[in-house]
Amino acid sequence: MKQGSAAQSGEERLIARYFAPLAKHGGAFGLADDAAAITPPTGCDLVLTADGIVAGVHFFPDDPPDTVAKKALRTNLSDLAAKGAKPLGFLLTLALPEEIGDTWLAPFARGLGADADAFRCPLLGGDTDRTGGPITISVAALGAVPHGKMLRRAGAKAGDCVVVTGTIGDAALGLVLRRDASAAVRWGLALAARESLKARYLVPEPRLAIAEILRAHASAAMDISDGLAGDLGKLCRASAVTAEVHVARIPLSGGARGALSTEPTLIETIITGGDDYEVLACVPAGKVEAFRQQASAAGVVVTVIGVVAAGEGEARFLGADGAQLVFAQPSFSHF
Amino acid sequence: MKQGSAAQSGEERLIARYFAPLAKHGGAFGLADDAAAITPPTGCDLVLTADGIVAGVHFFPDDPPDTVAKKALRTNLSDLAAKGAKPLGFLLTLALPEEIGDTWLAPFARGLGADADAFRCPLLGGDTDRTGGPITISVAALGAVPHGKMLRRAGAKAGDCVVVTGTIGDAALGLVLRRDASAAVRWGLALAARESLKARYLVPEPRLAIAEILRAHASAAMDISDGLAGDLGKLCRASAVTAEVHVARIPLSGGARGALSTEPTLIETIITGGDDYEVLACVPAGKVEAFRQQASAAGVVVTVIGVVAAGEGEARFLGADGAQLVFAQPSFSHF
Repeated sequence: MKQGSAAQSGEERLIARYFAPLAKHGGAFGLADDAAAITPPTGCDLVLTADGIVAGVHFFPDDPPDTVAKKALRTNLSDLAAKGAKPLGFLLTLALPEEIGDTWLAPFARGLGADADAFRCPLLGGDTDRTGGPITISVAALGAVPHGKMLRRAGAKAGDCVVVTGTIGDAALGLVLRRDASAAVRWGLALAARESLKARYLVPEPRLAIAEILRAHASAAMDISDGLAGDLGKLCRASAVTAEVHVARIPLSGGARGALSTEPTLIETIITGGDDYEVLACVPAGKVEAFRQQASAAGVVVTVIGVVAAGEGEARFLGADGAQLVFAQPSFSHF
Repeated sequence: MKQGSAAQSGEERLIARYFAPLAKHGGAFGLADDAAAITPPTGCDLVLTADGIVAGVHFFPDDPPDTVAKKALRTNLSDLAAKGAKPLGFLLTLALPEEIGDTWLAPFARGLGADADAFRCPLLGGDTDRTGGPITISVAALGAVPHGKMLRRAGAKAGDCVVVTGTIGDAALGLVLRRDASAAVRWGLALAARESLKARYLVPEPRLAIAEILRAHASAAMDISDGLAGDLGKLCRASAVTAEVHVARIPLSGGARGALSTEPTLIETIITGGDDYEVLACVPAGKVEAFRQQASAAGVVVTVIGVVAAGEGEARFLGADGAQLVFAQPSFSHF
């Protein structure tokens, strides 16, 4: 039995070709070992998160492979950002159907590598398997915060302002556009607006640029992955507070405003749809202005959408008339 | 919109019911946050590994859910053990088909919790998703070693002894028995021997009991997941050495010996089949006896099966007549 390089298994070749070049951290040993070894930064806690995406559930099987890779990594980076953490690296577990080969893997690895570089979050290790089902991608990401300083869902206090980054609902509307071509006609959106909404669904923007600023100002934070309404509800329950949001203050993109003007019931999709990957934070009123300015200087727009009051873990959304909106399904959930 | 506990999503309820009780580490925040925060042990490096298992590929869809959970966790713990690391915790990403409900999840969580306790490796976080395909379970495990001390595949030196823990080939034979009922008849094995082989496939035994002893004695180590021949080849390539193994010295269970006596060609299955999850290590000759004694005191049998020589990354397996065995497929690979 000759065990030269010709004796490499198919999996070893696949890893060597596509993923080893991404493993730029010395402790990843070029993915030629069973595990990675990294020295944690002194005085820091590790922040650990894992998120998976499945073809046909979280992305469309014919989505460009580079955007699939970016979504898989960025959903995790979004968690790190909302927790105030700096990325240290990630592990990747890939389950691939038989028909997936070089034409998919090459752009997938390229997209993953581009983001690993852009967000300084190197690939540290992982696993590649076959599956009889759809492409399934699990990422476990590792970040660092100063000891004891991870931002929690718990911690919001009465008097805090409820703030969000970016714009809300775009990805949910982008998903509607992907599923229902007639929506574009109904909404009367220009091509650029449609493409922008679809792009928000395809590739989220993790708000790592403000991770440290968040940590300095927020009393509680999380990323919005299952819809603003449901996620604010989770934060309120964890903090044992009530939040009151004025729907008119929720920041919307031009495309979302356009769609909403033709179909006002879309407000429910915007507020309860998933995949925003913006940061939802509660910030003491006295710190809001400094937070907004520093975030803005880092390129991230922050908007106050409501206030926190004493209460019992409830999130209320108030319309222009002051009446509370009632949603059929406040939070996105696959279960 | 009422956001009391009744507003919890289906996923939140599932996590609260089955997985939150397993999250005994304070930094897991009862799985009620987006990430875990743990303080790494002082002076240690983190050892990171991820392994996934897929129904129909790594386990049978009708395997008992508690053993599926144990296999998912233990394949990762096996990596930590072989790297000389002490477990700190793990993240779990579950993709579940529509039909999976309480009857599967309850025993799955029970098995996972039992192992998390037994191996002192608490659940720190994760993600639960739907899939249109088979049950897919990804675990990312985190361990610790003293700084700079992770055991590598690289590091084996000419003169080292090649050692393995436990017995080799049982899981591969157990898999044959699962797939081909006639094999049991051909091999003439007693029920206990058959069940023992099948059990080795179902639930591996991570060798965490000797992680520290390994670190004190071995110059290189890895766990055997893709078959002894292929994995020793990987270790030899990483260490740029040659290894020569005497097949007659490979430790076999009673069941494996029985099967082999009726069907001598099974030696290839034993040496190249996957799922052993034993430790393969290279130990300087002068340290072997101490290593063996300390491992034995920790309840793990260690056997010398060959020697390391200078060379070019080759693993040779020699039969009783001194001739080199040639294998059709030296290493298990799904690709």
